[in-house]
Amino acid sequence: MIPIFQKSRVFLLKEKDPIFEFNKQIIDSTKDICVSYKINTAFYEANGVDGWQSMQKTIDYIPKNIFTIADAKRGDIGNTSTQYAKAFFQNMNFDSVTVAPYMGKDSVSPFLQFEGKWAIVLGLTSNEGAFDFQYLKQNDVFLFESVIKKVSEWGNEQNLMFVIGATQTEQLQRIRQIIPRHFLLIPGVGTQGGSLQQVCQYGMNEDFGILINVSRQIIYASNQEDFAAKAHEAALKFKKEMEVYF
Amino acid sequence: MIPIFQKSRVFLLKEKDPIFEFNKQIIDSTKDICVSYKINTAFYEANGVDGWQSMQKTIDYIPKNIFTIADAKRGDIGNTSTQYAKAFFQNMNFDSVTVAPYMGKDSVSPFLQFEGKWAIVLGLTSNEGAFDFQYLKQNDVFLFESVIKKVSEWGNEQNLMFVIGATQTEQLQRIRQIIPRHFLLIPGVGTQGGSLQQVCQYGMNEDFGILINVSRQIIYASNQEDFAAKAHEAALKFKKEMEVYF
Repeated sequence: MIPIFQKSRVFLLKEKDPIFEFNKQIIDSTKDICVSYKINTAFYEANGVDGWQSMQKTIDYIPKNIFTIADAKRGDIGNTSTQYAKAFFQNMNFDSVTVAPYMGKDSVSPFLQFEGKWAIVLGLTSNEGAFDFQYLKQNDVFLFESVIKKVSEWGNEQNLMFVIGATQTEQLQRIRQIIPRHFLLIPGVGTQGGSLQQVCQYGMNEDFGILINVSRQIIYASNQEDFAAKAHEAALKFKKEMEVYF
Repeated sequence: MIPIFQKSRVFLLKEKDPIFEFNKQIIDSTKDICVSYKINTAFYEANGVDGWQSMQKTIDYIPKNIFTIADAKRGDIGNTSTQYAKAFFQNMNFDSVTVAPYMGKDSVSPFLQFEGKWAIVLGLTSNEGAFDFQYLKQNDVFLFESVIKKVSEWGNEQNLMFVIGATQTEQLQRIRQIIPRHFLLIPGVGTQGGSLQQVCQYGMNEDFGILINVSRQIIYASNQEDFAAKAHEAALKFKKEMEVYF
């Protein structure tokens, strides 16, 4: 269960760094419930230097026993991907980063070279645009299946996960045949409409095998000064819903 | 002709911001030759807050009549892509940003909503990994062709360009049949081995239609204190080589 931090609240604007203050309160109120935090880097980059500073303070504030994800969707030629990996794994000390696969092996592999760190590669995404290219088919194999199969050969279950949208559960069984043991990061439950029950039914394996991301339904559970308490309640509600499937 | 800034030199380390100092000297020595500067964002992000600051100072220093490219390869679900667009178009005031197409229309379209700004979408890239997925074929149409055709319907020739690697010139004729009028950003001439002659022969259209990126062969023309003078010479050499094809 993974809140994502992206915007602050009016009543926090008196704070020196309102975005960090928002995140700090969310972390304090959910850290006993969440197994991971996913930070959506775009919302920090939009604020330039100040935003990058807020992101740095946020990652530094997250307790070290909680898995952190830089949701950054990076990927470029090899020497450039190496720099992205350094940015998120070394400079910011994230545990993982999301990676876009379009540019192939030399764009993904650099993220797999860091001990104890994870690349989370886009397989089948939760958005409407997933249908534009990810379902193109060669010899009865969808592009997303080719991507998952090929990328899984470049890493292992200890340094590689895949993003599979919760809105695409009808494909989860096929995907689990290709990668029975990899962890999946599953966004799209909550605001985007994915079914928690189906995600668990088709996505889980014997190691559990799924990280379910719920963002806006937790961090925006209230837009009043009780936002942190409401986030706690919302996170707890999702946790209890999930426990049914353990 | 587009130098890319990515690392500094030992003798600049005494400067307060060695990366910006390097860039400043490169800009001063090449601004009368180049039509554009492409900044490879990963190399700044690797330095965290300080790096983002160097990038901001660099973009502010580039003369306003020179076209600027944030080579950032961004792309995410709609509301997130909008934040990336704000980061590069509004916060940093770049003229354009490179965009990865894997997530489809709602990941690309937000970059097309900013007056006078450009999305430069990955079509066929210059790296070895281009062969992993971009050449997958459905009904005799390569994935990169599907991407170029579909994406070209989402924008127009005034807000959309494509990245086509100079190492893939045998495909340039096919690509020009799909998008005869769009500008192409062509990396891969120089260090990566692409042919300037072939790029011009197959890529140019009556509006010129190509932006050729040469990076390392210009900014790393010398690793001594004469680097800026040598960059000037290297840029001039490429300019003269290109003039043959005008």
